Amino acid sequence: MRPIDLARQPGEWLRGTGTDCDIVISSRVRLARNVEGYHFVSRLPADRQAELTNTLWEEISREDVLPDAHYFDLTGAEELERRLLVERHLISREHEESDNQRGVAIEKTEAVSIMINEEDHIRLQVLHSGFELDRAWERANGLDTALGKRVPYAYSERLGFLTACPTNVGTGLRASVMLHLPALEMTKQIEKVFHAVAKINLAVRGLYGEGTQATGNFYQISNQVTLGKSEEEILHEIKAVIPEIVHNERKARDAILEHNRRQLEDRVWRAYGMLRGARVISSNETLALLSHLRLGVNLGLIPDLGVRAINELLLSTLPAHLQVLEGRELSPQARDEARAAYIRRCLGEL
Amino acid sequence: MRPIDLARQPGEWLRGTGTDCDIVISSRVRLARNVEGYHFVSRLPADRQAELTNTLWEEISREDVLPDAHYFDLTGAEELERRLLVERHLISREHEESDNQRGVAIEKTEAVSIMINEEDHIRLQVLHSGFELDRAWERANGLDTALGKRVPYAYSERLGFLTACPTNVGTGLRASVMLHLPALEMTKQIEKVFHAVAKINLAVRGLYGEGTQATGNFYQISNQVTLGKSEEEILHEIKAVIPEIVHNERKARDAILEHNRRQLEDRVWRAYGMLRGARVISSNETLALLSHLRLGVNLGLIPDLGVRAINELLLSTLPAHLQVLEGRELSPQARDEARAAYIRRCLGEL
Repeated sequence: MRPIDLARQPGEWLRGTGTDCDIVISSRVRLARNVEGYHFVSRLPADRQAELTNTLWEEISREDVLPDAHYFDLTGAEELERRLLVERHLISREHEESDNQRGVAIEKTEAVSIMINEEDHIRLQVLHSGFELDRAWERANGLDTALGKRVPYAYSERLGFLTACPTNVGTGLRASVMLHLPALEMTKQIEKVFHAVAKINLAVRGLYGEGTQATGNFYQISNQVTLGKSEEEILHEIKAVIPEIVHNERKARDAILEHNRRQLEDRVWRAYGMLRGARVISSNETLALLSHLRLGVNLGLIPDLGVRAINELLLSTLPAHLQVLEGRELSPQARDEARAAYIRRCLGEL
Repeated sequence: MRPIDLARQPGEWLRGTGTDCDIVISSRVRLARNVEGYHFVSRLPADRQAELTNTLWEEISREDVLPDAHYFDLTGAEELERRLLVERHLISREHEESDNQRGVAIEKTEAVSIMINEEDHIRLQVLHSGFELDRAWERANGLDTALGKRVPYAYSERLGFLTACPTNVGTGLRASVMLHLPALEMTKQIEKVFHAVAKINLAVRGLYGEGTQATGNFYQISNQVTLGKSEEEILHEIKAVIPEIVHNERKARDAILEHNRRQLEDRVWRAYGMLRGARVISSNETLALLSHLRLGVNLGLIPDLGVRAINELLLSTLPAHLQVLEGRELSPQARDEARAAYIRRCLGEL
């Protein structure tokens, strides 16, 4: 199996299931671990890196850890394949671009992926559609325990799990939730949300993590602090704030429906018309228009269209997915044309 | 018959017939005349203005002048009716807004309209779809001669026809041609055209004359000089320049089709999608989008749509037409919603 074989199946983060999945796209728990007896990746010679990937994959694939997984060696992988995994949120951009001897183990359902030799030796991620942090944490915790029995983790009694970057030391836990907040943006309340979230030391980022823009009103909220708190405390903090944001987004949607229904319909249906009319369209514009459309579908404004179709488009119109689905590499210009054609095939010609 | 009864028939200027009608929307000849023995309108008391409208309509309606015409008294007319006539290019904005005792005689086909007590006592206009200046001039000249036999025109051997404003003295002739030049605009050559046209003392204006913007790439080119030249010379000047502009627009269209076909299709089909998706749309945006659509249809990019439908929409989505067709006065906001609904009824829901 190769990464490109994943392209035609729905990604876990866009499955469109789980609690509050009209607003909470996905929930993610990630644990950073390192293996005793090995330098951190940045100081580990290539041959030792390679050795470690082999050892780790061997242990990960065991019956009592993650038997139902594929291993993708990223060292020799093609750029398009690596990027596809980034778009599916199975590996980080850093892991995609790095020069390390590295790989990723991916569970069949794509709910679990374990990056080997990213910044840390092990980056274990559980991703679920909807607001499912508890479920994601339970799974991650179980896997971590199982793997920890087979691999000696670098651990300090005083600090907790040791990590390459001090911002991860302690629990090594990053919990994050991807939200779709178009109504808060439309009603100009999104800044208020950011402000409130920053106050309790949570970070807000775009679709693809640090430094990426929140195109299409997709926002990722995650904890910053990993040290001095238990895993449960960290999860509790983020779990406490999400329902409030979801509630506010719902209130904003209701308010728009009540007071500006026509303007909302206008925005949604124009997006629909543009997507079906366009002959050339960028990835970012697609995301922005699909965001409007997704809101419209969730509010029942476009009866004949399902969230599934939109989620499918959100993923398949991303550059790497698009090229894999088209079966060839495309220049940016050709990609924008192919994307427009692909969208029309899905949503229908005008 | 009332002006609103015209609303459902195609206006002459948008009939879509005549020479080069894909680019030349319409050709217009207008003659300014005043009646001997009466002050110019601005200095004519209301009772004498009223008297003159009666006299002139009586003479205009004769068998040998314009028997096949209706007379609309504008003095007591409702604003909506007056604006409808402006939108149909049958009266000027000045005539619509003035306080004079005034009216307009309109030939059934709308090719001829004679304003009474606009700036001058008589403003005789012949309007034809397409590049048909000769035809328009012949008709105007014939009508002018016939009316001149019945009404003593204010005339000076030295100056020619006397008019209220010195810019019309002499021939009293204004010849103008309405052009649709989207490709010259897209290829950024439109300024060059303006420059060339200004050099030979022709004026460029928007859809509704002086001071209006060239929304939707519709441009009106007309002569400035009315004095010191014969009618034929004036007509010759404007007639000589139009084929060149038409040729350049065609060349620009061909160049776009050859080198930027996809971008053009994108613009055209997005306009189509927006028009069919919009729930709220202004008159100006409609014009701009219909302009793209019109180009697309003329270039055969949208097979199932005819120029007729677009011309019909260009007229019926204007504010007064829209309200008359909806059968009631509408606030600007309600109008933008009604316009969007009207467009969808014509072009089809998404």
